[in-house]
Amino acid sequence: MSLDKPLIIDCHGHYTTAPAPLTNFREAQVAHFKDPLKPAPDGVVVSDDEIRETIEKNQLKLLKERGADMTIFSPRASVMGPHIGDEGISRRWTIESNNIIKRVVDLFPETFIGVCQLPQSPGVSLQGSIEELQRCVDMGFVGCNLNPDPSGGHFNAPPLYDRYWYPFYEKMIELDVPAMVHVSGSCNPAFHATGAYYINADTTAFMQFIEGDLFKDFPELRLIIPHGGGAVPYHWGRYRGLADMLKKPNLRDHVMKNVYFDTCVYHQPGIDLLFKVIDNKNILFGSEMVGAVRGIDPETGFYFDDTKRYVDNLLISASDKYNVFEGNARRVYPRLDTALKARGR
Amino acid sequence: MSLDKPLIIDCHGHYTTAPAPLTNFREAQVAHFKDPLKPAPDGVVVSDDEIRETIEKNQLKLLKERGADMTIFSPRASVMGPHIGDEGISRRWTIESNNIIKRVVDLFPETFIGVCQLPQSPGVSLQGSIEELQRCVDMGFVGCNLNPDPSGGHFNAPPLYDRYWYPFYEKMIELDVPAMVHVSGSCNPAFHATGAYYINADTTAFMQFIEGDLFKDFPELRLIIPHGGGAVPYHWGRYRGLADMLKKPNLRDHVMKNVYFDTCVYHQPGIDLLFKVIDNKNILFGSEMVGAVRGIDPETGFYFDDTKRYVDNLLISASDKYNVFEGNARRVYPRLDTALKARGR
Repeated sequence: MSLDKPLIIDCHGHYTTAPAPLTNFREAQVAHFKDPLKPAPDGVVVSDDEIRETIEKNQLKLLKERGADMTIFSPRASVMGPHIGDEGISRRWTIESNNIIKRVVDLFPETFIGVCQLPQSPGVSLQGSIEELQRCVDMGFVGCNLNPDPSGGHFNAPPLYDRYWYPFYEKMIELDVPAMVHVSGSCNPAFHATGAYYINADTTAFMQFIEGDLFKDFPELRLIIPHGGGAVPYHWGRYRGLADMLKKPNLRDHVMKNVYFDTCVYHQPGIDLLFKVIDNKNILFGSEMVGAVRGIDPETGFYFDDTKRYVDNLLISASDKYNVFEGNARRVYPRLDTALKARGR
Repeated sequence: MSLDKPLIIDCHGHYTTAPAPLTNFREAQVAHFKDPLKPAPDGVVVSDDEIRETIEKNQLKLLKERGADMTIFSPRASVMGPHIGDEGISRRWTIESNNIIKRVVDLFPETFIGVCQLPQSPGVSLQGSIEELQRCVDMGFVGCNLNPDPSGGHFNAPPLYDRYWYPFYEKMIELDVPAMVHVSGSCNPAFHATGAYYINADTTAFMQFIEGDLFKDFPELRLIIPHGGGAVPYHWGRYRGLADMLKKPNLRDHVMKNVYFDTCVYHQPGIDLLFKVIDNKNILFGSEMVGAVRGIDPETGFYFDDTKRYVDNLLISASDKYNVFEGNARRVYPRLDTALKARGR
């Protein structure tokens, strides 16, 4: 580690630019599920060159331009689609999605490390997700994206403190991996995916953590709430007050030993607030790049999702910046730390 | 008007302390609906003294302590419960709830002015709400609380830009009253009411306004998104970027000529952010008092929901403070302005 020149680790990147054969597979898979007379797809046939091109022209290019070093990389969140088809469909799609992440990591081992999608499906047990997590960790993945609402916008899964989720948490702890709490696309017309559904799910998850006593049962569990923690930092007083009304310990002890927020907040005042109210030990650099908001901010002339700029602008110490860019990620993802150390970083 | 000493108008107060006969009526009404063998309640019998006591010991006391002058007052939001029973149940309950607000206003005409609940019910037309709005405006009410999710947490109503809502918007414009977009209690275990459901509904409503073109069709429509606009100010860059991606005009023209946020954000950094990113012409002082978060903030020694303190602390001009405390409310609620002028204010 170097305090002065930390590794810049983006904890939140999705393979939003995956090559067409992956998308084609998914479309054929869903079409076959809806109408078994339509042909089932065989698998995803894609060359290393195709993968290389999608990465070099997008994520890798932007990482370099922005001065970041690596990305904790997972399948495209908006198409995880656990509500589509059934558990078998979800599992097959998840395996293909994770396998292509593994190929990206193998092609760019210095730059990407994998986080897996899970074969969740509404109403079914998490046994399949436990197995897929094991399979992916065996391939070198360092975490997972856990979907708190596999229904795609009905929010009818048990709250995250419910025992329904416990077997999966036990597996996470056994493997020493964290989860990012991340929903997928919305099938509810009330919720725009990246503008409402994602943010609502983040806010909802945090409030569930306040309501429950999850971290009493799992003091080692580590969960990342993306998109800057949804509405939570902006309403930090409300959450502190609600914890008090619900006779819970203060948030520092009750939730914030186990929960982390990323920096996917696309303007300077939002990032300023995040760092003002949340301890920097609970903040991981992330950009959701190439992601939800792709344009250039006319007020600044820079990409909305170039979140490194906002963090660079903060008047915080070098050691605080080290935490946010590198140290916290190494602590929250111990398998990342191990991989980096093996490379002498 | 006086720039130096504005009226302090709280745009967001609920009758959370209503006397027991109102609650008893509701309980008996719901019990009778579920089991018609149980007796139907006759009505709400409550004396002026009982009403006076609930107000003097709570809202009025706190208003005076905090130096505010009046409250735009509506029935308790969390028990509007449009998902309970059917439309007839909702209508009867709504009439009782609004009538007791009218009595509060009659008892304390200098301090309270009414905003009504609506007899919404999942899946039914808004005709009953149109009639109740007319009835309440005839009684001197100056606005309404419009529930974007009458299901109580399933978010299965059409988005707010859908033509389903248009007849109601037409009535609002005819009567020149605004609506606060406000859900009720949550029947979805995923959503804590004040910690997740309210904030999610606020965020969702704003994103729906971005997605649609509602204000092209209704340039005079005025809607208040409570709780500081949900997650919106914190993610202002995301929303500016999404409007751009959706090929919409910039938010100032597309949404912010018609949409207002209140100051129900329970800590100083949140209020600071709100005023940093949102034009103060779009901000109305509100406290949600006596409301969602009732305790004292151990970090400040003052009530979390004493939001006037946070606004007082802002380094903004006297004319900006006038807007937020008085001017904007008079502009957004013209019937309030008329009532104040009739009193020589």
